[in-house]
Amino acid sequence: MKTVKLSIIGFGAVGQGVARSIVLKKEALKKQGIDLRVVGIADSKGCEVNANGIDLKSALLRKKENGCVAKGAESAIDIIREIEQDIIVEVTPTNIENGEPGLSNMTAAFESGRHVVTSNKGPLALCFSDLKECAEDNGLIFRYEATVGGAIPIFNLVHEALAGNTIIGIEGILNGTTNYILTRMAEERLPYEHVLREAQELGIAETDPTYDVEGIDSACKLVILANSIFGQSATYRDVDVTGITKITPEALELAGRNNYVVKLICEAGNGVLTVAPHLVPRRHPLAVGGTLNVASILTDLAGRITISGKGAGSIETASSILSDILYIARNS
Amino acid sequence: MKTVKLSIIGFGAVGQGVARSIVLKKEALKKQGIDLRVVGIADSKGCEVNANGIDLKSALLRKKENGCVAKGAESAIDIIREIEQDIIVEVTPTNIENGEPGLSNMTAAFESGRHVVTSNKGPLALCFSDLKECAEDNGLIFRYEATVGGAIPIFNLVHEALAGNTIIGIEGILNGTTNYILTRMAEERLPYEHVLREAQELGIAETDPTYDVEGIDSACKLVILANSIFGQSATYRDVDVTGITKITPEALELAGRNNYVVKLICEAGNGVLTVAPHLVPRRHPLAVGGTLNVASILTDLAGRITISGKGAGSIETASSILSDILYIARNS
Repeated sequence: MKTVKLSIIGFGAVGQGVARSIVLKKEALKKQGIDLRVVGIADSKGCEVNANGIDLKSALLRKKENGCVAKGAESAIDIIREIEQDIIVEVTPTNIENGEPGLSNMTAAFESGRHVVTSNKGPLALCFSDLKECAEDNGLIFRYEATVGGAIPIFNLVHEALAGNTIIGIEGILNGTTNYILTRMAEERLPYEHVLREAQELGIAETDPTYDVEGIDSACKLVILANSIFGQSATYRDVDVTGITKITPEALELAGRNNYVVKLICEAGNGVLTVAPHLVPRRHPLAVGGTLNVASILTDLAGRITISGKGAGSIETASSILSDILYIARNS
Repeated sequence: MKTVKLSIIGFGAVGQGVARSIVLKKEALKKQGIDLRVVGIADSKGCEVNANGIDLKSALLRKKENGCVAKGAESAIDIIREIEQDIIVEVTPTNIENGEPGLSNMTAAFESGRHVVTSNKGPLALCFSDLKECAEDNGLIFRYEATVGGAIPIFNLVHEALAGNTIIGIEGILNGTTNYILTRMAEERLPYEHVLREAQELGIAETDPTYDVEGIDSACKLVILANSIFGQSATYRDVDVTGITKITPEALELAGRNNYVVKLICEAGNGVLTVAPHLVPRRHPLAVGGTLNVASILTDLAGRITISGKGAGSIETASSILSDILYIARNS
């Protein structure tokens, strides 16, 4: 039995999803020889620490009832540096201005000899190559499957499943909110503002939808993909971005009459880094509807491989985080 | 630098594709620390052996000019047993009556301490669990990504990328010939016999199309998937199969008017193993056209993940074989 100790830094929807999925899978993983123990949890108000493994069910209940998990006052950085553990699961909220607190958390983790698994786009959209170098310098594993495409294992697909292929380019829909808005506008012939309000009521769009509808969230994800696949060191500010706010129902109807749909497409490859609305043939593999995400990978041997699935959701994102944790458990 | 020695058993379209892809990737792989050396090639007429590595370009040329690779008279089994090597790439033609010669080749490989990579469905559709056990008993790796879905890395997706998930079921289109026929019939409103002849002229369907159009090829692939994912030990004869020969253009037109397409769908999960034509909503992720293959994996955490790509082609199949070879190079 291999014991793997980890802390969850950030205990919002994703952090709680990780805790729930570990509760669900604990016994099955033990049968595979892996004993996952959460030894620290930190949220913005405090922390819980237990070297023998936190009772996750009661931590989840306390979070639900009190709005916080806090039993102690140590900071996230204290937990990262001072507890004996293998992996830091960094799932604090994305901040694309300066990447904090994720950036400091990840750097502290690598400096303290911990592997890092994250869903936090901010630090990676701003300084991917620095973080990668910091992991490599310390001989540690850095995994970030959950930063792009939610439940879809895009990085595993590119780096492991398609090993041996040269990746020529990548195209995709990496934001479920805009895909939902464009799909509804086309199907119901409704104006942008109307569908945006509907999406906000359903919790699919945020109160301030700017990051999604202006394509910034897509640009962050695209740059993480491009840096990881092509070894670039771009930031999201290097992406040429056009959002969806100026698309009219009339434009969508015209496209539909000619068997096209309009999608907010991210494209990387051959030096290009763009996010913009594109006409996509209705039968093209990228033409997925609703809140789905999709990535199409163009390779020299395998041709085009397209993968789609849920791009958001706490348990779906936790699925990607869990597969990264298991990768580290098996390869460290 | 890790030297990995392998033999290619069977030198038809797939075997030659493997040789071509190794020629293409040799230098790139050396930069990753892997020196792939083909030390044996066997086709039905003879073999070539070179402990220092065969000149693949001249072997491919000789095959093209003479129709065979033979320089020596050793049999495939001799090569498998007697050359010092790590991996046997078994790519002889599929035989679903008794699995030969693939079954004997794979068994000899495991008994001689070689890992096996294969695209040969026959032995796996007949006695998957025996082969898996034989590999495990000898502490060897058995990889078969190319047996199902050509270039699409389905097994990697299920076993590695979605690690931690419980797989609830799998649905897919696993035969490109029937997908081409159904797509053309629907789009051009042509009868089955007409489109079949067209597919035969294009080399998409074989002269005797029975295995494809009666769903037997799909059943073989489905049973390999089901055995691998659910730990079953079924054979292709356990699959409930209906082919596409009785589908009329009128039925497809009726489906189309209601925004459905008809697809030959393979289904496994919950004890079910079926191949049959199904109505699929036009916007469903499984509704891919032309010769594409697609697999949709239903999981407990990640939800539905769908992956599509080319299901056939020598270089596309070689892509899956190469990724299996690299997996073994890195994990043995």
